[in-house]
Amino acid sequence: MGGNFGKGFEDLGFAKVDHSRNSRCGRPEVIFCEGKTPEEVGEIASRIAAEAGYVLGTRANRAQFDAVAARLPAAEFHERARCITSGAAKPCPSAFAVGILSAGTSDLAVAEEAAVTLSAFGRRVERIYDVGVAGIHRMMDRLDAIRACGVLIVVAGMEGALPSVVAGLVDRPVIAVPTSVGYGASFGGLAALLGMLTSCGSKVTVVNIDNGFGAACAADAILRLAGEVHS
Amino acid sequence: MGGNFGKGFEDLGFAKVDHSRNSRCGRPEVIFCEGKTPEEVGEIASRIAAEAGYVLGTRANRAQFDAVAARLPAAEFHERARCITSGAAKPCPSAFAVGILSAGTSDLAVAEEAAVTLSAFGRRVERIYDVGVAGIHRMMDRLDAIRACGVLIVVAGMEGALPSVVAGLVDRPVIAVPTSVGYGASFGGLAALLGMLTSCGSKVTVVNIDNGFGAACAADAILRLAGEVHS
Amino acid sequence: MGGNFGKGFEDLGFAKVDHSRNSRCGRPEVIFCEGKTPEEVGEIASRIAAEAGYVLGTRANRAQFDAVAARLPAAEFHERARCITSGAAKPCPSAFAVGILSAGTSDLAVAEEAAVTLSAFGRRVERIYDVGVAGIHRMMDRLDAIRACGVLIVVAGMEGALPSVVAGLVDRPVIAVPTSVGYGASFGGLAALLGMLTSCGSKVTVVNIDNGFGAACAADAILRLAGEVHS
Amino acid sequence: MGGNFGKGFEDLGFAKVDHSRNSRCGRPEVIFCEGKTPEEVGEIASRIAAEAGYVLGTRANRAQFDAVAARLPAAEFHERARCITSGAAKPCPSAFAVGILSAGTSDLAVAEEAAVTLSAFGRRVERIYDVGVAGIHRMMDRLDAIRACGVLIVVAGMEGALPSVVAGLVDRPVIAVPTSVGYGASFGGLAALLGMLTSCGSKVTVVNIDNGFGAACAADAILRLAGEVHS
Amino acid sequence: MGGNFGKGFEDLGFAKVDHSRNSRCGRPEVIFCEGKTPEEVGEIASRIAAEAGYVLGTRANRAQFDAVAARLPAAEFHERARCITSGAAKPCPSAFAVGILSAGTSDLAVAEEAAVTLSAFGRRVERIYDVGVAGIHRMMDRLDAIRACGVLIVVAGMEGALPSVVAGLVDRPVIAVPTSVGYGASFGGLAALLGMLTSCGSKVTVVNIDNGFGAACAADAILRLAGEVHS
Amino acid sequence: MGGNFGKGFEDLGFAKVDHSRNSRCGRPEVIFCEGKTPEEVGEIASRIAAEAGYVLGTRANRAQFDAVAARLPAAEFHERARCITSGAAKPCPSAFAVGILSAGTSDLAVAEEAAVTLSAFGRRVERIYDVGVAGIHRMMDRLDAIRACGVLIVVAGMEGALPSVVAGLVDRPVIAVPTSVGYGASFGGLAALLGMLTSCGSKVTVVNIDNGFGAACAADAILRLAGEVHS
Amino acid sequence: MGGNFGKGFEDLGFAKVDHSRNSRCGRPEVIFCEGKTPEEVGEIASRIAAEAGYVLGTRANRAQFDAVAARLPAAEFHERARCITSGAAKPCPSAFAVGILSAGTSDLAVAEEAAVTLSAFGRRVERIYDVGVAGIHRMMDRLDAIRACGVLIVVAGMEGALPSVVAGLVDRPVIAVPTSVGYGASFGGLAALLGMLTSCGSKVTVVNIDNGFGAACAADAILRLAGEVHS
Amino acid sequence: MGGNFGKGFEDLGFAKVDHSRNSRCGRPEVIFCEGKTPEEVGEIASRIAAEAGYVLGTRANRAQFDAVAARLPAAEFHERARCITSGAAKPCPSAFAVGILSAGTSDLAVAEEAAVTLSAFGRRVERIYDVGVAGIHRMMDRLDAIRACGVLIVVAGMEGALPSVVAGLVDRPVIAVPTSVGYGASFGGLAALLGMLTSCGSKVTVVNIDNGFGAACAADAILRLAGEVHS
Repeated sequence: MGGNFGKGFEDLGFAKVDHSRNSRCGRPEVIFCEGKTPEEVGEIASRIAAEAGYVLGTRANRAQFDAVAARLPAAEFHERARCITSGAAKPCPSAFAVGILSAGTSDLAVAEEAAVTLSAFGRRVERIYDVGVAGIHRMMDRLDAIRACGVLIVVAGMEGALPSVVAGLVDRPVIAVPTSVGYGASFGGLAALLGMLTSCGSKVTVVNIDNGFGAACAADAILRLAGEVHS
Repeated sequence: MGGNFGKGFEDLGFAKVDHSRNSRCGRPEVIFCEGKTPEEVGEIASRIAAEAGYVLGTRANRAQFDAVAARLPAAEFHERARCITSGAAKPCPSAFAVGILSAGTSDLAVAEEAAVTLSAFGRRVERIYDVGVAGIHRMMDRLDAIRACGVLIVVAGMEGALPSVVAGLVDRPVIAVPTSVGYGASFGGLAALLGMLTSCGSKVTVVNIDNGFGAACAADAILRLAGEVHS
Repeated sequence: MGGNFGKGFEDLGFAKVDHSRNSRCGRPEVIFCEGKTPEEVGEIASRIAAEAGYVLGTRANRAQFDAVAARLPAAEFHERARCITSGAAKPCPSAFAVGILSAGTSDLAVAEEAAVTLSAFGRRVERIYDVGVAGIHRMMDRLDAIRACGVLIVVAGMEGALPSVVAGLVDRPVIAVPTSVGYGASFGGLAALLGMLTSCGSKVTVVNIDNGFGAACAADAILRLAGEVHS
Repeated sequence: MGGNFGKGFEDLGFAKVDHSRNSRCGRPEVIFCEGKTPEEVGEIASRIAAEAGYVLGTRANRAQFDAVAARLPAAEFHERARCITSGAAKPCPSAFAVGILSAGTSDLAVAEEAAVTLSAFGRRVERIYDVGVAGIHRMMDRLDAIRACGVLIVVAGMEGALPSVVAGLVDRPVIAVPTSVGYGASFGGLAALLGMLTSCGSKVTVVNIDNGFGAACAADAILRLAGEVHS
Repeated sequence: MGGNFGKGFEDLGFAKVDHSRNSRCGRPEVIFCEGKTPEEVGEIASRIAAEAGYVLGTRANRAQFDAVAARLPAAEFHERARCITSGAAKPCPSAFAVGILSAGTSDLAVAEEAAVTLSAFGRRVERIYDVGVAGIHRMMDRLDAIRACGVLIVVAGMEGALPSVVAGLVDRPVIAVPTSVGYGASFGGLAALLGMLTSCGSKVTVVNIDNGFGAACAADAILRLAGEVHS
Repeated sequence: MGGNFGKGFEDLGFAKVDHSRNSRCGRPEVIFCEGKTPEEVGEIASRIAAEAGYVLGTRANRAQFDAVAARLPAAEFHERARCITSGAAKPCPSAFAVGILSAGTSDLAVAEEAAVTLSAFGRRVERIYDVGVAGIHRMMDRLDAIRACGVLIVVAGMEGALPSVVAGLVDRPVIAVPTSVGYGASFGGLAALLGMLTSCGSKVTVVNIDNGFGAACAADAILRLAGEVHS
Repeated sequence: MGGNFGKGFEDLGFAKVDHSRNSRCGRPEVIFCEGKTPEEVGEIASRIAAEAGYVLGTRANRAQFDAVAARLPAAEFHERARCITSGAAKPCPSAFAVGILSAGTSDLAVAEEAAVTLSAFGRRVERIYDVGVAGIHRMMDRLDAIRACGVLIVVAGMEGALPSVVAGLVDRPVIAVPTSVGYGASFGGLAALLGMLTSCGSKVTVVNIDNGFGAACAADAILRLAGEVHS
Repeated sequence: MGGNFGKGFEDLGFAKVDHSRNSRCGRPEVIFCEGKTPEEVGEIASRIAAEAGYVLGTRANRAQFDAVAARLPAAEFHERARCITSGAAKPCPSAFAVGILSAGTSDLAVAEEAAVTLSAFGRRVERIYDVGVAGIHRMMDRLDAIRACGVLIVVAGMEGALPSVVAGLVDRPVIAVPTSVGYGASFGGLAALLGMLTSCGSKVTVVNIDNGFGAACAADAILRLAGEVHS
């Protein structure tokens, strides 16, 4: 591995593993598994684990998990979230959990990707699922739990209306995640994306369609800032 | 005018005025004023008034109104709604009003086009304005009034979330009208349109962007059906 | 099931079943089967049946049906409509049937989804299929049957012209359903959707692409309003 | 002018006037006036008139017309069609007229551009205006006149349904012209364009949005072919 | 079959076969096979054959062909064109062939659909394939053959430039067919479609993406008109 | 004003002013001036000022400012930012400033809208302008200042590449604001928007095109959370 | 100016002028004038002139030119190209000119922007205008001149077919510039852009819509490379 | 083969092989394998090899390779690049290599298509992979190697930011290749494509999505020009 490390990354031939990322951006490199061979995923995972102490792979399938588990026996496969983890960061002492709301049962894969990512990062997660606007009393029923969270990740397909409603009720940063759930004029998540971008709720920011991982990283960065203020 | 009328319409050279429409589709022809000269609007208006007893012109400007008022002194100009009326249908004996909800103050032009149209058709209108989802308690405050209406027209720009919420709370037909209000990724009403089409609320139907008139016609047709059942 | 019901819904862990919906919105919750496991569909179905007396599942496949039939032996699978039903609401005493028109044989799946949904809701349905505008005499031949209906659901792919023509001939609410049938520039139903939205026929409202279920719900709500007027 | 002409065109510095076009493609070059200065239009017009005996300019304004009229006193300005003509081709002995149908009064500018172009080319034109599908009996009333034409140009905005209906009723080539008339989801003619392209009527071909001139050229080419067969 | 035929079509339950189409629009109904079961295709085919003497099915697969061949032993399967024919119209005495140009080898399926359709209709076809603009000398090499045709169908994917070039060189109606061949920014034929619509060549009309059949019908209608002029 | 206030908002007839917003969502209602008359803006401004102690209006023009200044003499007009302020919240004791980066001089209006909003909210702002990626050494030159900020708002038009680069270099939440600056294929900010959404930088969240105000609100909510942790 | 220059750029407050660009990227910074005040343009121009010896401003209007001319009396305004120049680089000794082809007279503004830019950079330009594919013999007539150029910039709106044809005939790099000329389905240059991107001609690269300046810079970089090889 | 060759191409029935292309455009025809049968690819390959001495096939699969290898035993299959080669052009004496940069590991297929193509053309290639902007220090680490290249091909999906950054740092032609890598709002490469087109870097030209081959051809043409200058 040697001399490469002076440059802050390690060249595996097919990929540069960025070991300086942990200090530079706060988190070790996460493996985006889609389009990589099981062997490649396994190899990258064992290098990151050796350096950072824990590993997170997203958009993973079972074959990729098997290649990781062969090297890291403690690895777990989170099927619904399509994530691989092995170990986790040490729990953050933040006073706040991240609330993850989902509008319908079909948004669960994306919500779980966010939840597993945050858990791997040592954050507490509050799952508040199946609270879409077509039955808004369900969400109202959980309002206290929602207001107790430090950051809210709101996952919704279809018309993506949930983040607007949430942002009108709470005093916290709201990160909206459009999902590709829906059919017809949802156009693979475009309707939800545009809806969230044009949201009347002024505290709402948006990540890419189905990007539960990105939402988790943004929430993590917000809580890290809050943690620095604290100490 | 003569013989033309046997065919159910009258040929003015630049337009065929469709006098049989009243019996065939329930309402006299309405003048879509945009792109017509004041003279043309005035001429069509006086022909329709002579035949049907009242006139409605939409997307009208003041010059077109003046040309109508020169022929029909009782004509009124509804500035915000951009409508001309002269007279109205006799009030319908329906038990139900049409509730017109708007999300923001900027949606008023479209909401008023619907309201003026329905009034011209002899319907009762309940205006429930400025009740968008970013402050959802405002709408909750009016829930009884909303539930008392027979049909609901919900006008919203931005992300168009309001109709989903309304449809989850009431047991009535909901007609959603996306508006071109909003900027950036609202793309001239496209975001609201897609949001409404992919709405989770299963009773929601949608009309074209800014088409307050079309929503009013649909509501009118629904109440007419209810009226026939009645008698 | 216990205490949950005081809140109007029941938490199955993976989904909240909304038992208060029947009184709040007029109909029991319908199962959108796509993306759910057969076990999940079966479980939700048996809970709804116990509470509401009948069940409707849309976008269902045969494996999901089998899981339902194992619990509810009276369940039926409507293959063309991709629907599961078990029992039905008691017939509504409305004077009016819902007319369902389809433009071509390829639009049948969507038309049947609407028809099965309405039948499950206890409504009478009049099927008027294969009457597209390229052979408009076929539709003219059925004009009396069309005019006798209380509400018209018009299903069409390609250019979506049929609702405009129908709306010009009848005095009833017209609900247009664009379908994803067609190729090339139909862009998965977008051409039909835009065509219907910009329809010259002012009584036309539109639901999402392929959304036969939503059209049925809207028609049902309209007839329910008419029924209240009646009594 | 000299030597240039051996090459079949003449170089004016700012434009090459294509004098061989008449023999090569059947018609003298037509001036697309938009974006040209009055002086440029006037200059090009006088060169074409000298060579071909008649001139046609499209998308013209009055200032451009004045510059032409100063050089060619017989020039006429067709305001609605936005065309300049001076002289015309000698009448073609074809047995057939070109039928030009328009759906609404707002489509007249495009329909007239087609009509003026064909007249300048020496063709007979049958105007059948304001016969949109929302009042389909108007078109049925003119069915004999429509069937007597050799080629049909059908101009429609909004949902563009008219060409499908026409093509289902006649045995002639149908050229559809979408117009940018309409608002909201008509997206500047896109809805009509897509509708016409996906038309169920198999004899329908389409030209660009608002391109009355192109439709006229296509109709002219069809009749020229028929004329050659004749002689 | 009986009484139905007085109305000009025959109701098979799942489809109305339109037997009056031959006299009304010039050609018997053609079977669009996509999405139909082999049994349905076989059944419709045998009814049309009995009435019209020949059959054409487009977008067909081999299973559908087998079902047709079981009933009509003379049926042929045109694999590249994905067409089924059985018999053909009697040859038309027209002086002109239809020239079919294709830009690349990948456009052949669409070009052949047009060619098989025209042959079934009794028209002569001149195939001029693989003459795209990136090697424009190939097309120039065939210019005499091209100019001898009465109508030109130009099939092209990618940027769709070929119809413009052809229209600049000949004096005939040009029907452009965009194909979905191409990748990246061709967006399933959209690039070619837009290119053809905005073509500088004024005689160019366009049909839907991959719609070789529609182009053939339009060419057939043009030659039929020319034939009537002749006699 | 009276009894209305019990409900948390005040009904001015043309708008509901939401006085409970301050406690519910952390900030008094901000006036979106676009499309409102000067009188309306002035009236709303004076009511908010009376209740909240300071006022912020966005998308304002000078006429609207004059109407505000007539009522609130201390009001200021921020021309580049198109904002009106009168007073400001008391300075927040946060350790962190918000860094606002802009890619080019043409993005200044949007960057300034964010800056003025944050100043009105009592936040410290660090302006780091004209540091686009085409001259990336300019941004590198300011890296220490960038890293000292608690939250980063990155404003960029064209291809919107700047947020990705920033997110790769810092350990803070990054809020990206696409602007409508650019021409051709920037499509009014769509290119920048899509670029930011698909950003490789996992901490990046996005707000609507040109929405400097929304970015400021999100940054404010993040710092408020950090502040709560602090105390 | 002092100390700033050690960092390679100079801070004017409203813009950073990048004086190191000349050595780093080969050319002094060019002023994109759109959206800047005349004063700002004048100020930036005089700083660049002092440093680099010559100035180029694009997308300029006359007021901006006047502000430049007040400071740099030798400045010239190129109206059609919308460019300001003052001085020029010393002529490059390259053996090759850059050929600039335009399809129609309406593409001239973009073509001239490229031409003026290259002239300011000291390159020789060969203008070959009005040679669109609808009259392809015009381009063939200039084939020798085209083949003598080192790089070809091909400017075309409408369907953007010209670059494909050119690339099939020459052995040189071809830079395609789509223009926003055209109407209807050209969608502001999108049709030409997609056409050029999907071009069959494999040597074709594309710049943004109307970006004559960018094409010139790319051509300049190519010739600069060739020049280095030379010496 | 005989007489055909006088015309510069050879007609294989299903394709015209263009043997004059080598002298006319600088390179023998390359086989675009997608959509061709193995037999067709094998046949075309052996004809081109006989004439030109070497063969390149792109978008190839293994079955197509086997058909080529059966005829040309020296053929090689480049799996990642999806290319077939047999032989290569003789090495070009150019002083410059082509630098190929890729942003992420998922862009490798496209980058390798460019690399294999250039190698087959006898060019030297410098691979600089996995240097995306989210970790910009990786690219800075290779800056000397990048600056030593004569032309740069920059391959990137997601937001496509890399070419802008590169163009700001080097004095060479930059050819950007957007890839379809990414999900959600990347829309199959559209986000990267628009980003590259609107790039602030003025020397950037763009080819179609995933078109590594086209980028290689453009780079080859640039170096060929430089080579001519040399000799």
